[in-house]
Amino acid sequence: MLGLMQNQPLLISSLIDFAEKHHGDAEVVSRRVEGDIHRYTWRDVAGRARQVANALDGLKVGFSDRVATLAWNGYRHLELYFGVSGSGRVLHTINPRLHPDQVAWIANHAEDQVVCFDMTFLPIIQAVHARCETVKHWVALCDADKLPEGSGIPNLVSYEAWIGAQPNTCTWPSFDENSASSMCYTSGTTGNPKAALYSHRSTLLHAYAAALPDVMCLSARDAVLPVVPMFHVNAWGIPYSAALTGAKLVFPGPAMDGKSIYELIEAEKVSYAAGVPTVWQMLLNHMKPGNLRFSTLKRTVIGGSACPPAMITAFNDEYGVEVLHAWGMTEMSPLGTLCTLKNKHLAMSEADKMKIRLKQGRAIFGVDMKIVGDDGHELPWDGKAYGDLMVKGPWIVREYFKGEGGNPLVDGWFPTGDVATIDADGYMQITDRSKDVIKSGGEWISSIEIENIAMAHPAVAMAACIGMRHPKWDERPIVAVVKRPGAEVTREELLQFFEGKTAKWQIPDDVVFVDAIPLGATGKMLKTRLRELLKDYKLPGL
Amino acid sequence: MLGLMQNQPLLISSLIDFAEKHHGDAEVVSRRVEGDIHRYTWRDVAGRARQVANALDGLKVGFSDRVATLAWNGYRHLELYFGVSGSGRVLHTINPRLHPDQVAWIANHAEDQVVCFDMTFLPIIQAVHARCETVKHWVALCDADKLPEGSGIPNLVSYEAWIGAQPNTCTWPSFDENSASSMCYTSGTTGNPKAALYSHRSTLLHAYAAALPDVMCLSARDAVLPVVPMFHVNAWGIPYSAALTGAKLVFPGPAMDGKSIYELIEAEKVSYAAGVPTVWQMLLNHMKPGNLRFSTLKRTVIGGSACPPAMITAFNDEYGVEVLHAWGMTEMSPLGTLCTLKNKHLAMSEADKMKIRLKQGRAIFGVDMKIVGDDGHELPWDGKAYGDLMVKGPWIVREYFKGEGGNPLVDGWFPTGDVATIDADGYMQITDRSKDVIKSGGEWISSIEIENIAMAHPAVAMAACIGMRHPKWDERPIVAVVKRPGAEVTREELLQFFEGKTAKWQIPDDVVFVDAIPLGATGKMLKTRLRELLKDYKLPGL
Repeated sequence: MLGLMQNQPLLISSLIDFAEKHHGDAEVVSRRVEGDIHRYTWRDVAGRARQVANALDGLKVGFSDRVATLAWNGYRHLELYFGVSGSGRVLHTINPRLHPDQVAWIANHAEDQVVCFDMTFLPIIQAVHARCETVKHWVALCDADKLPEGSGIPNLVSYEAWIGAQPNTCTWPSFDENSASSMCYTSGTTGNPKAALYSHRSTLLHAYAAALPDVMCLSARDAVLPVVPMFHVNAWGIPYSAALTGAKLVFPGPAMDGKSIYELIEAEKVSYAAGVPTVWQMLLNHMKPGNLRFSTLKRTVIGGSACPPAMITAFNDEYGVEVLHAWGMTEMSPLGTLCTLKNKHLAMSEADKMKIRLKQGRAIFGVDMKIVGDDGHELPWDGKAYGDLMVKGPWIVREYFKGEGGNPLVDGWFPTGDVATIDADGYMQITDRSKDVIKSGGEWISSIEIENIAMAHPAVAMAACIGMRHPKWDERPIVAVVKRPGAEVTREELLQFFEGKTAKWQIPDDVVFVDAIPLGATGKMLKTRLRELLKDYKLPGL
Repeated sequence: MLGLMQNQPLLISSLIDFAEKHHGDAEVVSRRVEGDIHRYTWRDVAGRARQVANALDGLKVGFSDRVATLAWNGYRHLELYFGVSGSGRVLHTINPRLHPDQVAWIANHAEDQVVCFDMTFLPIIQAVHARCETVKHWVALCDADKLPEGSGIPNLVSYEAWIGAQPNTCTWPSFDENSASSMCYTSGTTGNPKAALYSHRSTLLHAYAAALPDVMCLSARDAVLPVVPMFHVNAWGIPYSAALTGAKLVFPGPAMDGKSIYELIEAEKVSYAAGVPTVWQMLLNHMKPGNLRFSTLKRTVIGGSACPPAMITAFNDEYGVEVLHAWGMTEMSPLGTLCTLKNKHLAMSEADKMKIRLKQGRAIFGVDMKIVGDDGHELPWDGKAYGDLMVKGPWIVREYFKGEGGNPLVDGWFPTGDVATIDADGYMQITDRSKDVIKSGGEWISSIEIENIAMAHPAVAMAACIGMRHPKWDERPIVAVVKRPGAEVTREELLQFFEGKTAKWQIPDDVVFVDAIPLGATGKMLKTRLRELLKDYKLPGL
């Protein structure tokens, strides 16, 4: 027997309808590519999203056809989020930090019909447009009078002229909530990029979950700064959850340096910000010399890669900002765990709380997880046993677009590629990526643990630990270090620094000072690239 | 094109699985019918819910068959919530405050197969069991040795003996998320009771929404006391949202008096409580004489009927507890609106904030609302125009069980029977029930507004305003008043008190002092009954 509740599909269009109707005058503020600040309201977003829908109708872009973006976090990108998906097309956010060859490959694989791009990325479009076989329309996200002449891109139109010609009214179509809404390619380290294809249902369930008090805790009293990019896993779903809650949105545009982020936080009274550790490190580096303070920021969620303990301490102790560790993946929409404390932790000492905060957190309702050993059997939740982390849930992929890579699931579970422990309270801690774990003498050494220790040294700005071939031990760890400007530390001092902080056999064999650690398109350390750079390196004594 | 996310139905069983796995040691504390305090954990709830599922299998109770409860808020009731629905049966919560004839009618209409009841309600069961044609099994919610002898109820078993014989393991079945999960009859004022039939999908979406920061704001750091009964619209969904968030649950059992509630709040460190105004009034009445204080309570959500401004002021100003007005209906699972402030309100004076807090609040994402005039056309959101309030959304009924009462929807919208205004910020305020509005000389007078003014008088404990037939004006308001113990006020003083607080023609024509206002099964004032009691009353001067 079925229940007798109203049949209403979960659709992205209902988010923007809600934001317009209930939070019409809440602000959306963007630093533009042009450098200035743009401000308007959720009501404006809704009207212009409908103009986008009408403009796509005008181009005869069909249901489920892909509309791509190469764009920073900003208001026009937000309009495309709702206008493209709301009208039944699929929003394909392309990571502009990818190599142009990859951009072209992805656009062809996705069969993009329309590509909308920020002017920053004109050179990429110029490099790839002739190779994008399915793209019929190129839209520059700029005013009509800013459209470049002689760009060489056929039929290039400005976004403002394109949508400006359209009425701002339409009725959003209703359709199956399992319809595809958006897609994002993972920058896989092996093989071709593979795309997660999100649905309206998965997006809305994720939007509810992401706003919960134990997740991002978003309300109509928040001003939210997503530094995490909208071109990568939907900025952690913040654009959707902000519409669901009526929060103010603040977009950094291309200016992700510490000074710009700090100024935006202060000027727009940001209460909540989300980003990857590298961006927050730049922010802290900017604030420290001038002894700057936050006047409104209360919470920051840090994810994308494990956050160095020193950074959590700095935010908490020096700036009074609660740092929440988050963990997720492109394949997970992206949120899986958030590290919020439980009631029983509140009376703990700060030191004990910190031990919990260093973990990636506990599962959000909707995400189920387990760790398994080499033979696939489930391991205990004791905070010690570590194994491959597997997840399942309604916002986790069951397969990739066009079946790329075959069936990724193992007995219905998605293998994350992370190695983790889970404690009795359900707090998961990633000990390493499966591929980054250093296997020394039959034991595993976590590269992340080594990096965290190095990062705690005051002279170290960034550290990356990788394994080097060793004839006896199979692999031995070394750590590549970027020194802070003006700071000095020797190889011997740093190796000494490890003493007592980890088991003796886990201490790296060597320290290599480098000018920079190669970063990937999403700001994560590219260890494959680092290994290439150090291909002629020899371990001491060999 | 469909998205490629995992297919996973939204099922109530996933809530209890989650609570067990991630919050296994979080407490569930109950004051029992026996008077003592029972405490255990979410892990225990899960194990015993599975015993319930196995026990129902043992009785060959089929998929979608109805299992009824007549029970207070307590741990066994909670186990039935998850065990009955999780295993695919339909939980039918019966309001024990209904007349036994109604209980029998409802049990027959629902075709209940099993009835589980607290010992408090043994007399009701004794009165009705012979008339309940479909019930095959009667379960007394007590220990085996407490089972009454000679009850006259055939095959009566104790809950503990019944589930105690079962293993605490089972695999929850998977099925269509639109399957019926639970049902609740409305105590309609006209015609037969009608049942809302909830689904697993509607229950889970409501559980996500109810936990949001702008709704009940539930997290793993909360201890929640639902004074709102589990026998009526699922205690506002708190049992489900608590499992979703891992909150501690505290159940008052039958002891809803001010002293018992106060002691439970203090002893169990309750941070959040939900109830109807009449219960909170008893709590405040208990606290005032002894100058008692709350040490952990931070928020309380008040709903069920409009909350007198004096009560909001008392909680806020005297006790430092944030009062959130809520509004919902049995037909809405039940939550529709919550009165949380927006960012732009935070800088307001307390007096201005209070003007907002007096409203029923703004719609939760998932609920769409509008107000319409007599001719069905939509009215503006200006805070002034008032009309019939209509709602729609995935946790709102589309029809009643067995089609009772025909199609309740008007163009897809459910008419709530409330008359309301909605302001430009989306804050809805109920001005009256459609049936309670007093129509005087072609104008409408809100009975609630009159009651609120009367309740603000220090000598008034409770007030009910009803319309009396008048030859010239059609209807004129009078107010029935219960005085506070020991307080004195005359008819003339009270009528004087209205001067300047409302339009002159809206001031009641008379004050009638009564010993008590009749209350319905859910604690709301029963104006129909009050009208009967005053059937010989004559307006002054007539």
